[in-house]
Amino acid sequence: MNKKIALYDTTLRDGSQTEGISLSVMDKLRIAQRLDKLGIQYIEGGWPGSNPKDMEFFKKIKRKSLKNSAITAFGSTRRPGKSTGKDKNVRTLLESGCKVITIFGKSSVLHVRDILRTSNEENLKMIYDTVKYLKSKGKTVFFDAEHFFDGYFGNPSYALKTLIAAQDAGSDTIILCDTNGGTLTHDLSRVISEIKPNISVPLGIHAHNDNALAVANSLAAVSLGCQHVQGTINGYGERCGNADLCAIIANLKIKMGIDCVSDSKLKELTEVSRFVAEACNMKHQDNQPFVGQSAFAHKGGVHINAVMKNPHSYEHIRPDLVGNKRRVLVSELSGKSTILFKAKEMELDLKGKDRKTKKILNLLQDLEHKGYHFEAAQGSFELLVKRALKKYKDFFKLEGYKVIIEKTEEGKVRSEATIKLRVKDKVEYTASKGDGPVNALDRALRKALLDFYPALAKMHLSDFRVRVLDEKAGTAAKVRVLIQSQDAKKSWWTIGVSENIIEASWDALVDSVEYKLLKG
Amino acid sequence: MNKKIALYDTTLRDGSQTEGISLSVMDKLRIAQRLDKLGIQYIEGGWPGSNPKDMEFFKKIKRKSLKNSAITAFGSTRRPGKSTGKDKNVRTLLESGCKVITIFGKSSVLHVRDILRTSNEENLKMIYDTVKYLKSKGKTVFFDAEHFFDGYFGNPSYALKTLIAAQDAGSDTIILCDTNGGTLTHDLSRVISEIKPNISVPLGIHAHNDNALAVANSLAAVSLGCQHVQGTINGYGERCGNADLCAIIANLKIKMGIDCVSDSKLKELTEVSRFVAEACNMKHQDNQPFVGQSAFAHKGGVHINAVMKNPHSYEHIRPDLVGNKRRVLVSELSGKSTILFKAKEMELDLKGKDRKTKKILNLLQDLEHKGYHFEAAQGSFELLVKRALKKYKDFFKLEGYKVIIEKTEEGKVRSEATIKLRVKDKVEYTASKGDGPVNALDRALRKALLDFYPALAKMHLSDFRVRVLDEKAGTAAKVRVLIQSQDAKKSWWTIGVSENIIEASWDALVDSVEYKLLKG
Repeated sequence: MNKKIALYDTTLRDGSQTEGISLSVMDKLRIAQRLDKLGIQYIEGGWPGSNPKDMEFFKKIKRKSLKNSAITAFGSTRRPGKSTGKDKNVRTLLESGCKVITIFGKSSVLHVRDILRTSNEENLKMIYDTVKYLKSKGKTVFFDAEHFFDGYFGNPSYALKTLIAAQDAGSDTIILCDTNGGTLTHDLSRVISEIKPNISVPLGIHAHNDNALAVANSLAAVSLGCQHVQGTINGYGERCGNADLCAIIANLKIKMGIDCVSDSKLKELTEVSRFVAEACNMKHQDNQPFVGQSAFAHKGGVHINAVMKNPHSYEHIRPDLVGNKRRVLVSELSGKSTILFKAKEMELDLKGKDRKTKKILNLLQDLEHKGYHFEAAQGSFELLVKRALKKYKDFFKLEGYKVIIEKTEEGKVRSEATIKLRVKDKVEYTASKGDGPVNALDRALRKALLDFYPALAKMHLSDFRVRVLDEKAGTAAKVRVLIQSQDAKKSWWTIGVSENIIEASWDALVDSVEYKLLKG
Repeated sequence: MNKKIALYDTTLRDGSQTEGISLSVMDKLRIAQRLDKLGIQYIEGGWPGSNPKDMEFFKKIKRKSLKNSAITAFGSTRRPGKSTGKDKNVRTLLESGCKVITIFGKSSVLHVRDILRTSNEENLKMIYDTVKYLKSKGKTVFFDAEHFFDGYFGNPSYALKTLIAAQDAGSDTIILCDTNGGTLTHDLSRVISEIKPNISVPLGIHAHNDNALAVANSLAAVSLGCQHVQGTINGYGERCGNADLCAIIANLKIKMGIDCVSDSKLKELTEVSRFVAEACNMKHQDNQPFVGQSAFAHKGGVHINAVMKNPHSYEHIRPDLVGNKRRVLVSELSGKSTILFKAKEMELDLKGKDRKTKKILNLLQDLEHKGYHFEAAQGSFELLVKRALKKYKDFFKLEGYKVIIEKTEEGKVRSEATIKLRVKDKVEYTASKGDGPVNALDRALRKALLDFYPALAKMHLSDFRVRVLDEKAGTAAKVRVLIQSQDAKKSWWTIGVSENIIEASWDALVDSVEYKLLKG
């Protein structure tokens, strides 16, 4: 196993194929700069021949002075029967101005026949000619052997010939691609072992997650001597995604002792993962290995108890190694020890024998019985504890609200909310329209408070969830509303429960604002 | 490799440890019945000693006649220094009435010392005594060797001794647990190979996904002879989750040729995955291997082109094998065949070339684009098709509604709805209070219609669900409301989508009533 590994990120190209992701040139520039800071060696910027936006990216990224990363351009081999120098796709690759070019070619006879519709011999020439031509222009050339594993299962000698064509033409690295993501780890390992003796240039791996094995396959390839690993941040990519570079980096560094990033860069991993999710406008996955917000969250009573005795007992690594944090969740099942742990986090002096501890526990269990779920709403939980301990005074007092939703004969629906609040001894009346009743309430509340608490301008609501608790009660069912809010530094969840969805939303909204005001 | 594998689901216990999941007894019963239908051999129902709700589940599940699954109860070995027969935890396991009991014990000296705080010798006795005692009561006993791999890395001979204690006491299967989910696949494989010669009873595997290798580790264990695989539907579970049984089942069956479920059951996999997500109120993961809605979705131009030439080119399996579907994004070609299929179900005569088919398709795609999801609302879908084909006239026409929600200074909240309808040339004004705004609308609507359509007295709403579609929009987000209604013969789902939750609920309510009136 080689201890020197090149990391190759394709979030900007393969990652942008994810359903729901659409990156602007500006987004791409921000992501590239963040990956450069993390120390990723190669960042695949895009496919200049397929997407005009990508050329703009290549132009603009040159003006940013990246410190650690080389930007690469991606494209296919020349077309069948054409001259390489005149091939439009190959020309745009040169026009990108990148020093490193990644060329993909077909390693599967099925694809040569059905998709390229050319001969096996011509396909080998296309690979050879394109790599050779780009090398003659002074480029570093990576060859992506597309569908390599599927091709090898169908026709091993031909698949190997495509690699040798790229090697003979001077390819600097040859990447074995499991393009459809369907190869089992032991089959993939066998194939790599079989071809390795025939290839003298460094090998790389490009895995997809269609069978949930992308990370396993990438690590297996490294353990068999592959020196270059392709993937995307958070595993973004078409269908089930590419191999998740976050999990790969953490596993290589912590578990396999491969120094692919420095210790201090590794601590940025969680932040990078969230940054990229934000830039792609994707929800960050709570249960994502290493970097998810639940990755070190403990809920079961037995686990919490054990983690308090020895954190190593239910954690495979120290969360801070990857910049993540341990979290203890509060639930109906949790006991006194959880409350004490949380109080410590809030820097509150609370003892097990304290009457107040018992009081908070009873309050918590009572509310959870009514349908509250504080594990999912740490913001409301903190307010509950601090209210019980009289650690703060309410920032305002509601004297009443009224919400009207009206649908007219023409089918138009309008929502309007009026609020009466007492703030710092003044009575505030405000009203607002909104996109739906909760939005109208939200706007009216902010309008009433903003003059008194300008900090509220710096927070916004980022998620909103509704769960019906006792479905059988039909439209009279109790509902639980969860609201996530965030400012520049952090995010927090708050909760409300009621048979009335408007009232449940109001409670969650009020907690959201109170939490911001409490924390500043 | 053994071709006979037992599937063991722990969605109800380990899965319920997921942050954000909170299952009622009713939810658990529904999930267990669905898993039984899928043909899972063992369903871990819960931990009767740790959670009073679980005992209720064990009581109630007995009244359902499961066809394929055995329900198991989970618990720990007896406490240090106690008599097994008098141990409260062990007693509750017997009280569960389950024929199969899963006992977990510690295989790691770190845990014996720091968490149990007992001697290595006593821990071995605890394992032996508990298994022996339960066997003497005629139970099938599975032994979960908790932290087995971590324990083995620290002290291999002691870890092995814990397995042998369970084996000597008569354990029917011994499950090797990677409790912290941090073991690399090649390390896990090495350990299994090393211990296997010492164990004569069947071995099982229980993997967690903290390093993104849970599925790979489970498959590796099977290929080394483990005959029992534990996991959860959708990989739910504490921290980063357990091994995803959906991916495991599909890989075992399709890729490894292990007949763990029948071909026809395999086709239910996508539906089961979505059903469980819905029951857990979790968003179904779009990119989930095999069963995600993007798992066979093609976006890249090259890929779409190739898939149209030969679907196998960018798909590792045929999507219908697991009950999933190919989706071509940004294509108007998809869907026509579905419409024709559905029309046939409704006994409507519709042809592919029919202009009406095109019209329905456009309408459907437009609405799905806006957030409708007709797969989950067949009632509304049937109304949509029949409306488009002018197969019925609306039973009433809304001229307007108004909903008022008011909170007073004393904290009381009241909801009131007024509705103006035109029914059979009469104008009906009604008003009603309700438990929340939707319930008020519901009551006012029925009041208005009952004299004209007495059949409505025979239907009622049985389920009500709300999902926020674009969470990032905060309180202005679009919401999707699903309502299930039923009468003596059948049940049906209807849907509404709007930025205004009241309006979305109204639309779903109206469809619910119209469907009943249409079907009689």
